[in-house]
Amino acid sequence: MHHRARTSLLTIAAIALGAPALAQGLDVPAKNLPVPQDVSPQVQKLIAAPLRNGWNVLPKSGEEWKPVADAGAEPTIRNLPGLLERMNVKVEKSTIDGVRVFMVTPATIAPANQNRVVIHMHGGCYVLNPREAGLPEAVMLAGFGGFKVIAVEYRMPPEAYFPAALDDGMTVYKNVLKTMNAKNIALIGTSAGGALVLQMGLRARQLNLPMPGAISSGTPMSDVTKVGDTFYTNELVDNVLVSRDGFCDAGTKVYAAGHDLKDPLISPVYGDYKGFAPTILTSGTRDLLLSNTVRVHRKLRDAGVESFLQVFEGQSHAHYLRDDTAPETKATFAEIAAFFDKHMGK
Amino acid sequence: MHHRARTSLLTIAAIALGAPALAQGLDVPAKNLPVPQDVSPQVQKLIAAPLRNGWNVLPKSGEEWKPVADAGAEPTIRNLPGLLERMNVKVEKSTIDGVRVFMVTPATIAPANQNRVVIHMHGGCYVLNPREAGLPEAVMLAGFGGFKVIAVEYRMPPEAYFPAALDDGMTVYKNVLKTMNAKNIALIGTSAGGALVLQMGLRARQLNLPMPGAISSGTPMSDVTKVGDTFYTNELVDNVLVSRDGFCDAGTKVYAAGHDLKDPLISPVYGDYKGFAPTILTSGTRDLLLSNTVRVHRKLRDAGVESFLQVFEGQSHAHYLRDDTAPETKATFAEIAAFFDKHMGK
Repeated sequence: MHHRARTSLLTIAAIALGAPALAQGLDVPAKNLPVPQDVSPQVQKLIAAPLRNGWNVLPKSGEEWKPVADAGAEPTIRNLPGLLERMNVKVEKSTIDGVRVFMVTPATIAPANQNRVVIHMHGGCYVLNPREAGLPEAVMLAGFGGFKVIAVEYRMPPEAYFPAALDDGMTVYKNVLKTMNAKNIALIGTSAGGALVLQMGLRARQLNLPMPGAISSGTPMSDVTKVGDTFYTNELVDNVLVSRDGFCDAGTKVYAAGHDLKDPLISPVYGDYKGFAPTILTSGTRDLLLSNTVRVHRKLRDAGVESFLQVFEGQSHAHYLRDDTAPETKATFAEIAAFFDKHMGK
Repeated sequence: MHHRARTSLLTIAAIALGAPALAQGLDVPAKNLPVPQDVSPQVQKLIAAPLRNGWNVLPKSGEEWKPVADAGAEPTIRNLPGLLERMNVKVEKSTIDGVRVFMVTPATIAPANQNRVVIHMHGGCYVLNPREAGLPEAVMLAGFGGFKVIAVEYRMPPEAYFPAALDDGMTVYKNVLKTMNAKNIALIGTSAGGALVLQMGLRARQLNLPMPGAISSGTPMSDVTKVGDTFYTNELVDNVLVSRDGFCDAGTKVYAAGHDLKDPLISPVYGDYKGFAPTILTSGTRDLLLSNTVRVHRKLRDAGVESFLQVFEGQSHAHYLRDDTAPETKATFAEIAAFFDKHMGK
């Protein structure tokens, strides 16, 4: 609201002065977006899906989010056995220093990956994808890349609030560091998870811990203050997040519980990336967070950090996690696995 | 038209069957896009500019394009002395095997670049930016990167038609190959130039010539058949190209002069990229050709080619060539120069 109010004042000033109204912005007429024909049938189906059901339902507390999260988790958990079978991956529940985790292990660990481990932070706006619903990305990396993955089932509202998710991730990272060289550890996450892995890198440096060997940050919620041009250009175009004022923003606010949203440990685009780990970033041309992805890429590159950006045709937010049979999904994980292999220790 | 007609039939079929109308696509309401605040003041000014004057004026012949090109060239040529001074670069007219070129030389050639040369193919929809109006990208690479550049003033309609521009580029490439290792040669171009440098790589292989050391393809017109999702999502959002049915499409059709637009030597996204040169790609989040850029990236990567993608916040088509004082422009050329340095011979 503050931002909008300021824009309006500038607009009035510009009109009063007769100047070209820079702050008025660009009026774009209504349009129809056909389903692109230059993507796989699987991705066409994802793009053709209607806007996410309930995108503008905005629970206001951890208690209100709980049933929403449970209902949303159901189809993902129902589909998990099929995914595990196709990926030839097994999952075991465990805890690490009190943090709930899933040990995600492929039937075949790639020879180069014997002494490597990847820590996974799931997405879901800090309130969604509880329990096994957080696992698809971890399972796909294990299956497509032949990596051992520790998927962190971090605490979420109403169980705990900021910085609980980050703390749980750091607890696991610190534990793994006891027995493994930092270079042999990678982090992966998408959406809130994509932000969390960036936050973990920034936090590691605050704590004088060594950087992991590599990080994969998929379409990160790197700026939850609604700054980023594709929050506007891809509004009602991205059929997953749909709007900067939608459910994901509501979930983040509940998690933040009043903490400053500009803190780099919530909006990591504002962090200092000097000496950061090599980082691969993934987005799509319809992604509401395309700007938040490319802005992190720019920050990393300006800080002299190795960083690789991949952007997929027509995809909305995190579409690459939706269908493991899509060739685009395989390409996504092939890039991530190759990037990890290039930068991690052996 | 053919594509649209098919979509309509599918739509009718879907409605008749009562099925979810996949081919109907997504209806996006009218919206206002504020000028993003997370870019430099220089880029804010570019983004705030109105839609390109005359974007929907569609000259139909080389003769009709000539006065349009001459008028458009004037402001660029007027600004060239200032650019040359800021970049500390000098330009000399010459010819190479009958092809008109400009030799673009920085006051200081970087030590690593003494035995390297870059061939530049300018943009302008194959009909615009005649004479010195084609030089800004060449001058910026020379100035920011410390490279010697040969800027090809290739023939355009009404002087000549497809494949004249490509042929002129190849003539220069073949000439330079006589005295220099292919690995010490790079190609750079934006828009039509971004397509031409891809076409040159593909053509080099057809002719059994060695690949250049590296290629920079900025927001390439890699698919002039109007396939690409951002032709729709960024329609009337990109304030430079504006629309897939605008002036640039008209210019390309005049140049193609009836040749098949799906030929990889006009729409290089359809080429075979196995063994292609390492390629850096540049685009922006509002770029009408963002899809055509990321699709080439994907093609290159799927073919196992080194390729780096950079996408700039809020920028429309080739905004990075508009203001050499913008930090984003410096970042663009710093990436290109570093990529060239990494992959070229010494």
